[in-house]
Amino acid sequence: MDRDDVRKLLEGVRVGSLTPDEVLEHLARAPVEDLGHTALDAHRAVRAGVPEVIYGAGKTGPQVVDIARALLARGQSVLATRLDEAKGPFVRDALGPDATWHPVAGVLVARRGPAPVPVGCIGVVSAGTSDAPVAEEARVVAEALGNHVLRIEDVGIAGVHRVLARLGDLRACRVVVVVAGMDGALPGLVAGLVRAPVVAVPTSVGYGASFQGLAALLTMLNACAPGVSVVNIDNGFGAAYQASRINRAGEGA
Amino acid sequence: MDRDDVRKLLEGVRVGSLTPDEVLEHLARAPVEDLGHTALDAHRAVRAGVPEVIYGAGKTGPQVVDIARALLARGQSVLATRLDEAKGPFVRDALGPDATWHPVAGVLVARRGPAPVPVGCIGVVSAGTSDAPVAEEARVVAEALGNHVLRIEDVGIAGVHRVLARLGDLRACRVVVVVAGMDGALPGLVAGLVRAPVVAVPTSVGYGASFQGLAALLTMLNACAPGVSVVNIDNGFGAAYQASRINRAGEGA
Amino acid sequence: MDRDDVRKLLEGVRVGSLTPDEVLEHLARAPVEDLGHTALDAHRAVRAGVPEVIYGAGKTGPQVVDIARALLARGQSVLATRLDEAKGPFVRDALGPDATWHPVAGVLVARRGPAPVPVGCIGVVSAGTSDAPVAEEARVVAEALGNHVLRIEDVGIAGVHRVLARLGDLRACRVVVVVAGMDGALPGLVAGLVRAPVVAVPTSVGYGASFQGLAALLTMLNACAPGVSVVNIDNGFGAAYQASRINRAGEGA
Amino acid sequence: MDRDDVRKLLEGVRVGSLTPDEVLEHLARAPVEDLGHTALDAHRAVRAGVPEVIYGAGKTGPQVVDIARALLARGQSVLATRLDEAKGPFVRDALGPDATWHPVAGVLVARRGPAPVPVGCIGVVSAGTSDAPVAEEARVVAEALGNHVLRIEDVGIAGVHRVLARLGDLRACRVVVVVAGMDGALPGLVAGLVRAPVVAVPTSVGYGASFQGLAALLTMLNACAPGVSVVNIDNGFGAAYQASRINRAGEGA
Amino acid sequence: MDRDDVRKLLEGVRVGSLTPDEVLEHLARAPVEDLGHTALDAHRAVRAGVPEVIYGAGKTGPQVVDIARALLARGQSVLATRLDEAKGPFVRDALGPDATWHPVAGVLVARRGPAPVPVGCIGVVSAGTSDAPVAEEARVVAEALGNHVLRIEDVGIAGVHRVLARLGDLRACRVVVVVAGMDGALPGLVAGLVRAPVVAVPTSVGYGASFQGLAALLTMLNACAPGVSVVNIDNGFGAAYQASRINRAGEGA
Amino acid sequence: MDRDDVRKLLEGVRVGSLTPDEVLEHLARAPVEDLGHTALDAHRAVRAGVPEVIYGAGKTGPQVVDIARALLARGQSVLATRLDEAKGPFVRDALGPDATWHPVAGVLVARRGPAPVPVGCIGVVSAGTSDAPVAEEARVVAEALGNHVLRIEDVGIAGVHRVLARLGDLRACRVVVVVAGMDGALPGLVAGLVRAPVVAVPTSVGYGASFQGLAALLTMLNACAPGVSVVNIDNGFGAAYQASRINRAGEGA
Amino acid sequence: MDRDDVRKLLEGVRVGSLTPDEVLEHLARAPVEDLGHTALDAHRAVRAGVPEVIYGAGKTGPQVVDIARALLARGQSVLATRLDEAKGPFVRDALGPDATWHPVAGVLVARRGPAPVPVGCIGVVSAGTSDAPVAEEARVVAEALGNHVLRIEDVGIAGVHRVLARLGDLRACRVVVVVAGMDGALPGLVAGLVRAPVVAVPTSVGYGASFQGLAALLTMLNACAPGVSVVNIDNGFGAAYQASRINRAGEGA
Amino acid sequence: MDRDDVRKLLEGVRVGSLTPDEVLEHLARAPVEDLGHTALDAHRAVRAGVPEVIYGAGKTGPQVVDIARALLARGQSVLATRLDEAKGPFVRDALGPDATWHPVAGVLVARRGPAPVPVGCIGVVSAGTSDAPVAEEARVVAEALGNHVLRIEDVGIAGVHRVLARLGDLRACRVVVVVAGMDGALPGLVAGLVRAPVVAVPTSVGYGASFQGLAALLTMLNACAPGVSVVNIDNGFGAAYQASRINRAGEGA
Repeated sequence: MDRDDVRKLLEGVRVGSLTPDEVLEHLARAPVEDLGHTALDAHRAVRAGVPEVIYGAGKTGPQVVDIARALLARGQSVLATRLDEAKGPFVRDALGPDATWHPVAGVLVARRGPAPVPVGCIGVVSAGTSDAPVAEEARVVAEALGNHVLRIEDVGIAGVHRVLARLGDLRACRVVVVVAGMDGALPGLVAGLVRAPVVAVPTSVGYGASFQGLAALLTMLNACAPGVSVVNIDNGFGAAYQASRINRAGEGA
Repeated sequence: MDRDDVRKLLEGVRVGSLTPDEVLEHLARAPVEDLGHTALDAHRAVRAGVPEVIYGAGKTGPQVVDIARALLARGQSVLATRLDEAKGPFVRDALGPDATWHPVAGVLVARRGPAPVPVGCIGVVSAGTSDAPVAEEARVVAEALGNHVLRIEDVGIAGVHRVLARLGDLRACRVVVVVAGMDGALPGLVAGLVRAPVVAVPTSVGYGASFQGLAALLTMLNACAPGVSVVNIDNGFGAAYQASRINRAGEGA
Repeated sequence: MDRDDVRKLLEGVRVGSLTPDEVLEHLARAPVEDLGHTALDAHRAVRAGVPEVIYGAGKTGPQVVDIARALLARGQSVLATRLDEAKGPFVRDALGPDATWHPVAGVLVARRGPAPVPVGCIGVVSAGTSDAPVAEEARVVAEALGNHVLRIEDVGIAGVHRVLARLGDLRACRVVVVVAGMDGALPGLVAGLVRAPVVAVPTSVGYGASFQGLAALLTMLNACAPGVSVVNIDNGFGAAYQASRINRAGEGA
Repeated sequence: MDRDDVRKLLEGVRVGSLTPDEVLEHLARAPVEDLGHTALDAHRAVRAGVPEVIYGAGKTGPQVVDIARALLARGQSVLATRLDEAKGPFVRDALGPDATWHPVAGVLVARRGPAPVPVGCIGVVSAGTSDAPVAEEARVVAEALGNHVLRIEDVGIAGVHRVLARLGDLRACRVVVVVAGMDGALPGLVAGLVRAPVVAVPTSVGYGASFQGLAALLTMLNACAPGVSVVNIDNGFGAAYQASRINRAGEGA
Repeated sequence: MDRDDVRKLLEGVRVGSLTPDEVLEHLARAPVEDLGHTALDAHRAVRAGVPEVIYGAGKTGPQVVDIARALLARGQSVLATRLDEAKGPFVRDALGPDATWHPVAGVLVARRGPAPVPVGCIGVVSAGTSDAPVAEEARVVAEALGNHVLRIEDVGIAGVHRVLARLGDLRACRVVVVVAGMDGALPGLVAGLVRAPVVAVPTSVGYGASFQGLAALLTMLNACAPGVSVVNIDNGFGAAYQASRINRAGEGA
Repeated sequence: MDRDDVRKLLEGVRVGSLTPDEVLEHLARAPVEDLGHTALDAHRAVRAGVPEVIYGAGKTGPQVVDIARALLARGQSVLATRLDEAKGPFVRDALGPDATWHPVAGVLVARRGPAPVPVGCIGVVSAGTSDAPVAEEARVVAEALGNHVLRIEDVGIAGVHRVLARLGDLRACRVVVVVAGMDGALPGLVAGLVRAPVVAVPTSVGYGASFQGLAALLTMLNACAPGVSVVNIDNGFGAAYQASRINRAGEGA
Repeated sequence: MDRDDVRKLLEGVRVGSLTPDEVLEHLARAPVEDLGHTALDAHRAVRAGVPEVIYGAGKTGPQVVDIARALLARGQSVLATRLDEAKGPFVRDALGPDATWHPVAGVLVARRGPAPVPVGCIGVVSAGTSDAPVAEEARVVAEALGNHVLRIEDVGIAGVHRVLARLGDLRACRVVVVVAGMDGALPGLVAGLVRAPVVAVPTSVGYGASFQGLAALLTMLNACAPGVSVVNIDNGFGAAYQASRINRAGEGA
Repeated sequence: MDRDDVRKLLEGVRVGSLTPDEVLEHLARAPVEDLGHTALDAHRAVRAGVPEVIYGAGKTGPQVVDIARALLARGQSVLATRLDEAKGPFVRDALGPDATWHPVAGVLVARRGPAPVPVGCIGVVSAGTSDAPVAEEARVVAEALGNHVLRIEDVGIAGVHRVLARLGDLRACRVVVVVAGMDGALPGLVAGLVRAPVVAVPTSVGYGASFQGLAALLTMLNACAPGVSVVNIDNGFGAAYQASRINRAGEGA
């Protein structure tokens, strides 16, 4: 409900087609409907330009299906994250042929209407095989949000020349998501080599004193090279979402 | 030293104007010169498109002056941060009329050649009066890097309607830097209201359990609204630098 | 055993119906009886005005049943928390038709005598579906302690207008319990919008750097808006108990 | 700006005394004015029922004076906290005879109009001499917000009988603020003895492993006795504000 | 191998019954034998006055049996801790009728020779039912080490009068072990009421912000009442061992 | 006020020399008097067998003098800790010739009546020169509480043979206080060599990752050798007080 | 690809056998090949002098087999760590008779070509039975990297004389790896007794306040005796690798 | 006192020149003398092959002078660290012309006898100007212990090519000390490029979330490249001492 919507309501009062009390009700109730366990905000897609996202970790399979169906019924596309082997196939089968579940990423996409035309370029770089689930979550989400993605796997800091070998590819991206656990040094290295902003994702991979990603998180926040900003541990979704905002800003969107 | 530079050297070998050993020397030595206490990288401005930055916190006034003069002598502009009342005027006076020192921000700018033509728009929002030094550091740095800046002060979460009153301005920015201490909730709130990426800066302002900014940092990393990425505590410079990368990516730069 | 009880004992000494040694014994032993694994305090309900609470997490089903039966046998109502799918139905079935077990909340209520007449109003607001178990624990406990409860679900900070749409309801409450995980920003937002005290409950829901609720806890302790006080992570019971004290204080109870 | 205010504006549109665009402007701009370094919200006193509070820690003396004068000029009373020996007398002298500065508490009060008629009763209990500044901040703030205060000093847990000796007084309060450093055990002890809600304030007083109040904070969050909620370390102001909400809720205010 | 042992060896050299090299070998090898996976120190019982203790947590059942048998074969009594339902009965059955396994405590005792005559008195106080395993570990170990034990269960801080009712018993002890989770306030309370030293054991019982016993640990280290020293979280064994040293010091042992 | 005192009061009621209300007053008020900034408990010395202790860190010199004079006026000896160069001489001079101030320990002792006859033996061992202030606090306090003290300085773990050379002395003590910073390994080493209980005091001495004594604290809590219990960081007073309880328990006091 | 390799390429340009663009391609691509889920660096063995290491923890059995086969196919030996009971035998059987799996260490070694001739001596000392898996990982890795290993088990700090009895053996090593959990004091003790550098490995073994190895880690970083450096918690591999570098440096390798 | 010394004593018993009791005294007393505030171990230089080190941070200037003079009087060289501007010149002047004080490093060296002939090579690399004091402490100490040192300054990770340009020099070292604050990524980078062991020193330099070196410490412990071990924060001395052990092990010393 933006400035224009409110002006229309006020116009209605002016011409007498709406009473002040009706407008008051409208202002209070319009953006929210109720579905029992989750209040749906049907206007959000329009407001923020993205499909509605369902965070699957704290919900049962049937809960996810209910919310997704309600959204699809309004013509809204759905992106559901953190659906593991136990929930993902169940939700996919319940939603039918429009739904695709990506097992490594744990992400499900179900479309209403055509997919957005992809724009720009987001690099998604990961340091090791163990970081793949987080990096894949970032890749699938970034593509679902309408971005071209360049995926580069297993480029660790231990061998600097591996990074240098991929430099041409990295420099073609408008924003680079870098996923790394253990010492988390890769994003700072990449930021020293490219001009694009780097969105860093620490992962919870590592030995004892990695403290479930805390070490990597602190490394990234303290990166010597400027041009790095950080999202939550293991939050591939958040990195992709932020990268999409950055990439599409370059498109005027 | 990019791909083209190396191709030129190789071309020199091919035509016989350079020996392989000369090229080897070139590859090893070209990018770095030595100034005693700081190895200078004169090619960096060209490589990354920005003036050289001097982090003033761990250096004496005379050290900063030495480094700045060496850079200016090569025709390179200089940006020095963390220059407090004790060091800032000293450095400014030593560098002469081209240097400007911003006391609240603690930032000094000294130009060689014309300033870049500013582009796009970076919003710099701060929550309270106490956050001003960090926010001003972000503003001055962002402007020095060639960006238009919209500065909005003292928009705290305690009064949501204050944020809403500035929403039109915020939505005109291509990226928004949000500076906040205490509970650090403002960036998540802003990210729920705009489409642009939000770069969040926690500050060390607050009561005991703010733990010098740790509370705000964690809040921002856990922001419910996607579209937030975070830089280090009190790191206004880092936020501005990252925002400049994002803003200028939208310009094709 | 209050001032009046002691005066009666002293009166007994004065008139000779009690010896000093008998009173000494009385003073030392009266308030506590022994049940083997748990010392029961049968006077507590009278002293604090509430049913006896059994914290079920560290006890076996049969232990809970034993304690509950002993209390019920004295005519005391019982409230048992943290009874999961494995223990809840077992305890309910053992205690018979007076007992009700709430599966989402994990709370069992067994009454002796009529339920208290509910008074006032406690708002119980939760941010997301994943916070429901904690919020439901708060709701069931608050009702069992004799309070009207207004339950509002899934009002997150990401969409500020969702909160605003419910503002009229929130303002009618005498105290508001706000349950939130992730960034924990909702209680501060609510406190900026209502006049009632807000009791904030951080939950352990969230990505890695939520650190099992620590991030939300710190956010709430640092809330910019005054009028927020905080209970332990996931402690829906404690919030409801505190809210009941506040709500009933308004009743002169 | 509440529901009635908006209805009046809409009524203006209906009768033609206001255009829709004028109302739109009103909705966007009304609650906020601008004073340079601090955006003032002149409606807040009306909205939340309290004088405007100035957090003095991050501001210079002249900044506090500017903000206070602007508020007083609108007829609004002012409460400024964290004004130490260096700033307090300066601000008091600048504001003239209406201003009072409390040196132990570090709080300044400047009135416009009569002080509110005090209601109810807030207990303010502190454990040791070293906790006095925080407890005094709570006392002065609570009185300034229109509450009767019962101040009880130096009641530590080491001697339980000291607490018991004051029990009659504590039980007469509608809410009790308990201030304690070191092990922070006092609030739990008090909550086991009274029916009123306890608002606990950890202080940064103690030996090494108190970690500047962290130990006391954790103790309070884990208090065995329900009926305790906690505010930030050393935050006497926040405790008083919350206690005032609780106390005045009992007054129907 | 004490001073007398060495003197005897030197005497042997003096009278020619031992060569210097034989004594050198003796000095290097005497105190340690080898059993494959655990180097046994058969002299330790003599040196420290206690049976050999086997920490069962990091060992398999058969490993515990091997070590225990080797010790028993030398006539040494054995105390094995942290033997859960899976390992305890196995070890007990393997060692035969001399071995007793205490299921709540998870402790096994196997004697060679008569049990020591118990002396003095150690109080073992626990706050709640959930703390019982740790408190029982302390009780069984203290008894096995030759101490009278007074076991008092479920004496929480929430009801101060419960503690007071047991005061006579507590004051008869020469040392008091106090086991508590959650806020860990009980040891400080007890230390304010008795003259004996208090050995405090934090447990990992509690809601989220107890952080697996960290909150209780810090509370105990910061106890306002002097006379409290602390052992590791859940370490009932360590508390009993320390209490035994204190109690038996009073016996001249 | 112990059992006998209460029995006397009850006896007074029985024979009619006291009314029940007078006894009620007595029970409530007797143990506490009021001195303005500190509630004095004049019965404590009798109850706990020790001089009254004043923790000087959070008090001004004149405050300490006031409290000390009030105690001395009742014939009570005084022990004041944490009196640095600024406060110690001031307090000593104000209290006159009976007061002694120990500058390294920062402790002042002022006697009323003869000093207690020292008993038993407390070892006070420190690892390095930098730990001396804490160890001296422990020594002076232990002596003031009526214990013989054996002081052993600068016995670090780096040279094991240094410890072994002092073993005979250590074994003659009934309890050993071990003070250590940095890695805090010394108490575990000593506990493996003596039969007496070891009270460990971590100090805040050390390089960065000592984290102001946290490293030493954790080491001591995890000491492999049983027989170690721990007090707060830098808390020489607490260690001496606990050691005195242990040592005097051996005296039947 | 070292200086000589580059000189050869340049020489190729000089003589016309290579074009500049071919060399550019070479420089960018040579060191890295692609295998789908893991980019292989076939030159690493040559560069760093060691077999390729596969970190098995985050990979499936078949993934480990794929990577190992690709390496073996190039004539490269393989060392795979963190292969538990579930994965180890599977990988060993798949790789055939050249592969050996060490169950306690969880390490698999598969050779191509003869094993290196072992040199020097690395001591691997562990404190208790529970530390064996980490110490065995260190032993197997150190041997696979071409070092003689002296393995000493179960030498705890609780009995200092146990360490002394093994001193002659320890002093014969060129570097000593010391593995310890709980208080982590053993490495500092050993460093005080030998001249060789000590590489310390904290383990996650211990009671609650060991915090999964954090206590041991801090102890080791703060070791009073110089000559200790530390690797990650439970990282037997890293310690062995570092010790091998130190040991072989002594060989001129 | 090594095996040979003890054999000589035993031989003396055998031939009757020493009594057993004299030998006992010898064994107990020989290695330690007493100087009042610091027990000196005059044999240590012989035992460990290094000059005696005085840690100056916790001592007064005169204390350092006393200890140094006593050592020099025995013909022992002295190395004193952490002597700042206030203490360094005082100690140097007191000790006379043999003493040299290095102001950036804060280290004083005073020789007795000729300096050791330097051997091998230790690299000392630092990332930025602010890390210089720690790196200089490492350099001066390493030289004083008899090692050649190659000092490389200001080689940060932000510009990878800077590191590569110095690679030849780094590869000539037998061990490399790498000093870095902020993100602490440099040691892992260096370890990926050289074969020598890397001793990493985190420094306390950085923005807020560096947490006084904790971030750098964790990064180094989690370094992806093996071959890194870590010493305490800011502990340049410890790194140099460890590097000297490694370097001289290569010399057979």
